[in-house]
Amino acid sequence: MKNLVLLGSTGSIGEQTLNVLEKLDDWNLKGISCYESIDKVKSQAIKFRPDFIAINDETDLHDLKNGLPDNYKPEILIGRKGFVELAGLNNIDMVINAIVGAAGLEPSYNAILNGNKLGLANKESLVIGGNLIIPLAKENNVDIIPIDSEHNAIFQLLKGEDRSEVSRLILTASGGPFYGYTAEEIEDVTVEDALNHPNWNMGSKISIDSATLMNKGLEVIEAHWLFDYSYDKIDVVIHPQSIIHSMIELIDGSILAELGTADMRTPIQYALKYPERGNKVAESLSLKDIGKLEFNSPDLETFPALRMAYECGQMGKGYPVVLNAANEIAVKAFLNKKIKFNHIPIIISKMLDKHKGRTFEDLNEILELNRTVRELTEEVVSTC
Amino acid sequence: MKNLVLLGSTGSIGEQTLNVLEKLDDWNLKGISCYESIDKVKSQAIKFRPDFIAINDETDLHDLKNGLPDNYKPEILIGRKGFVELAGLNNIDMVINAIVGAAGLEPSYNAILNGNKLGLANKESLVIGGNLIIPLAKENNVDIIPIDSEHNAIFQLLKGEDRSEVSRLILTASGGPFYGYTAEEIEDVTVEDALNHPNWNMGSKISIDSATLMNKGLEVIEAHWLFDYSYDKIDVVIHPQSIIHSMIELIDGSILAELGTADMRTPIQYALKYPERGNKVAESLSLKDIGKLEFNSPDLETFPALRMAYECGQMGKGYPVVLNAANEIAVKAFLNKKIKFNHIPIIISKMLDKHKGRTFEDLNEILELNRTVRELTEEVVSTC
Repeated sequence: MKNLVLLGSTGSIGEQTLNVLEKLDDWNLKGISCYESIDKVKSQAIKFRPDFIAINDETDLHDLKNGLPDNYKPEILIGRKGFVELAGLNNIDMVINAIVGAAGLEPSYNAILNGNKLGLANKESLVIGGNLIIPLAKENNVDIIPIDSEHNAIFQLLKGEDRSEVSRLILTASGGPFYGYTAEEIEDVTVEDALNHPNWNMGSKISIDSATLMNKGLEVIEAHWLFDYSYDKIDVVIHPQSIIHSMIELIDGSILAELGTADMRTPIQYALKYPERGNKVAESLSLKDIGKLEFNSPDLETFPALRMAYECGQMGKGYPVVLNAANEIAVKAFLNKKIKFNHIPIIISKMLDKHKGRTFEDLNEILELNRTVRELTEEVVSTC
Repeated sequence: MKNLVLLGSTGSIGEQTLNVLEKLDDWNLKGISCYESIDKVKSQAIKFRPDFIAINDETDLHDLKNGLPDNYKPEILIGRKGFVELAGLNNIDMVINAIVGAAGLEPSYNAILNGNKLGLANKESLVIGGNLIIPLAKENNVDIIPIDSEHNAIFQLLKGEDRSEVSRLILTASGGPFYGYTAEEIEDVTVEDALNHPNWNMGSKISIDSATLMNKGLEVIEAHWLFDYSYDKIDVVIHPQSIIHSMIELIDGSILAELGTADMRTPIQYALKYPERGNKVAESLSLKDIGKLEFNSPDLETFPALRMAYECGQMGKGYPVVLNAANEIAVKAFLNKKIKFNHIPIIISKMLDKHKGRTFEDLNEILELNRTVRELTEEVVSTC
C-alpha cells in the first residue's frame, strides 16, 4: 500500500481526491487536513481512518474528537505548524496539496524538503515561492505532479517530446462567467453571478479568480516555474468549452493538445498513478456530442488581472507575492460584499504600485511580505 | 548527406516533398519517379540532379532525355520493374512512396525487403498489402513513418504513451465538399464539385475519395495495420476544419490531439527528420484566428463507402483489395464522366458481392486479384 497525505481534504479538490481514492485499491490515506470544516473532516476521518488529522484552530479540538469511534485514535495536529508537519511525514508516497491560497506554500516546501513527492493543486506554492520550491525539488530529486487541469495537460504532453523542440505553452481559459462582457458591463455583477462558473464546479476563491482571469494569470506564473519557460513563450487562449485543457506548440508548428471532460478526478488520478495511467474515473468525452470548440483572445481591457499577472511574473522578485496577497484579500472582500467586482484589480494595482521590488533569500521573507501585503490590503479595502 | 528516393515526385505530395527538401541541407535526392508527367519530372531532374529517374513508359524515354544538360547523365529506369528497383536501391536513408493507388504496393514491399526506411504517403500499400508489409517490416527492423496527416498525428501522439494505455484511435475527417448533403442531394454532383475540397489541396483521386469518404475508410484500414488496433478501437469523427489531424484516447479518458494547418509539408518534414523535429515549413496555426472547431458523426447513409471499408477491413482476406481496386476504377470512371458520383459505392458493392474471400500467401496473389478486379470493374463500368 502507498501512503497519501491530503492537505485541504474538505475543499473541492480534497473531496474529489477522496472520491478517486475509493476507486483505487493501492492507496492508504495516512493524513488529512482542513482549515475549519470540522464536521466534514470528522466524517472523512471516520470513513478513511487516517492516522493523522490536522486542523487550524485548537478550539475545534473538542468538536473533532467528540463523535470519533472509541477504537479510532488519530494523532491530531494543530495550526500552521501542524499542516507543515503533516506534509513532511516519513514514509509518504505522495502529498497532495489542495490548500487554497498562499497558506499552501509552507506545507509544499516541507513536503519537498523531506523528499515527499508532491501532487500540486495549490498553485500559490509556485506563484509566490517558485524561486525556492523548484530549486529545492531539483536538489532533493522530488517530482512535482501538477493537478491543475491545464498544467496536468501540459505535463502529459511534454512527456513524449524533446524539451528543446517545444516552442510554446498554450494555456486555455474558459473566460469565466463574464466572457464577452465589456468593462462597463462588468461593473455591476454580483457575487452570485461571479460564482456561477460555466464549466467547472470549484471552490469560491478560484471561481472568483476565474471570473477576473486572475486564475489564469496565476496559472501562467505557475507554468513558468513548473516547466521553466519564459513568459513570452506562455500564451493564453480563451476556450469557453474547457474541453482542451491546454496545448504545447513544437518547433515544426505542430500543436499537441490534451482534451477531456471538465472533471478534476482525471488529473487527480493521473498524479496518483503517474507514470502509469488508471482507468476512467470520470465521464468519457464525446466530441460528436459537444459539437464545437471555440477560441478567442483574452480581453485584457475588461480583465486586467491577466495582464498584471504577466507583468508581475516578468518583474519577479516580490511582485507575484504582492499580486497574490492583494488578490486574496480583495477576493475575500468581494465575496463578503464589501467591494465591487471591478475593484478587485484596482486594489491589486494599488498594492503593486506601493511595492518596491526586493529579492528573497528565504521562505520567511516571502511569508513576511505576504503577511504585510495582506494587512495593507485589508486597510485599503476598509476605506473602499 | 542522407539519400532520399522519392516515388511519385510529380504528384501533390511529391512536389511538396521537393519543396521541403529545398529547405533542408542534409538530404540528397538520389532518385525520383513519375508515371506520365514527363515535362515535370524533367524539370525536377534538372533542378535536383538525381542519379536515378524512373518513368512508366519506354516511349517517353526520348522526350525525357531530350533537353537534359550534357553534363548530367542520370540512369533511367522503366516501368513497374523500374519503380521497384528504385525503391530497393542500396545506401538509401528513406524512400518516400507518394505513388497514387495500388501501384504503390510493390515499391513499398521492395523498399522494406531491402531494409530501406519508408515514408509512407501511399496508403494502398497497407490497405491491400498490410498483412505482408507489416510482418516484413518487423522482420527486417524497418521503420514505416506515415505521412498521411491523420496517421502522422497518431504516430506523434503514440510516441509518448505506453501502448497498453491507449484505448482508441480517433481519425478526423473533413467530411469533404458534400458534408451535410443528403443521399438525394448527392446524386447530381459534378466532377468539378467533387474536386473542390474545402481544406486540402490534393490530387484528383484522393479528392474524390475524400468526397465519398472512401479516403477515410482506406485510412481506417491503414491505421489498423500501422498501429495494430482492432477496428472497433478505430473511430472516425467528422471535423470540417481539418485542424485536429487526429487523436488518441487513453484508458483514463484523456484524449490527446495533434493540430496544425492543412499543409502536408509538416508531416513530410516530420518523416524526414524523425525522431527529431525540424523548424516550421508551413504557416503557423492560430486557434484565435480560426475561432471554432466543429465535430459530428459521419453520415453512413449518404456516404456508404466508409461503412464498406470498415466491413472489408474486418472481413480481411481479399476484401480490402477488392474494395480498393473497384474504387480506383470507379473513381477514374467518375472523373472521366462515365458514371455518376453515387454510382461509385454501388459499383464497389457489386464487386464485393462477387468476391469470395480468399487468404493470400504472397505479393503476386494480391497483385493478381487487384488486376482481375480492376478488369471486372471496367466491364461493369462500361455497362453503366
